[in-house]
Amino acid sequence: MLTQRIHVDRVFHALGDPTRRAMMEKLSEGPVSVSKLAKPLDITLAAVVQHLQILEESGLVRTEKVGRVRTCRIEAKGLGVVERWISERRSDWEKRFDRLGQLLVNTE
Amino acid sequence: MLTQRIHVDRVFHALGDPTRRAMMEKLSEGPVSVSKLAKPLDITLAAVVQHLQILEESGLVRTEKVGRVRTCRIEAKGLGVVERWISERRSDWEKRFDRLGQLLVNTE
Repeated sequence: MLTQRIHVDRVFHALGDPTRRAMMEKLSEGPVSVSKLAKPLDITLAAVVQHLQILEESGLVRTEKVGRVRTCRIEAKGLGVVERWISERRSDWEKRFDRLGQLLVNTE
Repeated sequence: MLTQRIHVDRVFHALGDPTRRAMMEKLSEGPVSVSKLAKPLDITLAAVVQHLQILEESGLVRTEKVGRVRTCRIEAKGLGVVERWISERRSDWEKRFDRLGQLLVNTE
């Protein structure tokens, strides 16, 4: 439960930053090298590497070094954490609505 | 497109804060008054009202004043924005995987 909480905190913190979201948007087109990922971003390579580290620690991105090139790709784990959190909020809320609906039907 | 971008930015910024996520978690159990929402949070009522304003502007929460009590509830619009953004990231990425799979089958 605590591990899950830490993970939720990490992932939402990671995605709260517009540069990191732009990196995720680029990566959703397919895996790219760190330098290609950095190119349209107008920030230093060092800053890109720092952002990537945060995305990796949140389970949103995976990087792999083959030869001299480090390739980045989206990892499903982090996306799943957000999806679950959102659907939990929505389903509790919708369950409430359903119960209210039944209550109204029963008192008609 | 630009409106959608602003909305995505707003919603992720709103959910990037742990206090606002705690408020969403409480609200997913059902609508509550502002004072009840504030009680377990250990911050001032003024801070809660500020957080609520950010959640309202993002389409994550709706508040309504009846008599002297302001009631807060989750709004689906903001949750939908996150769900769509996540599923777009995932689906592009999965489409890539599918294409890679087909490629491997065709070259066997």
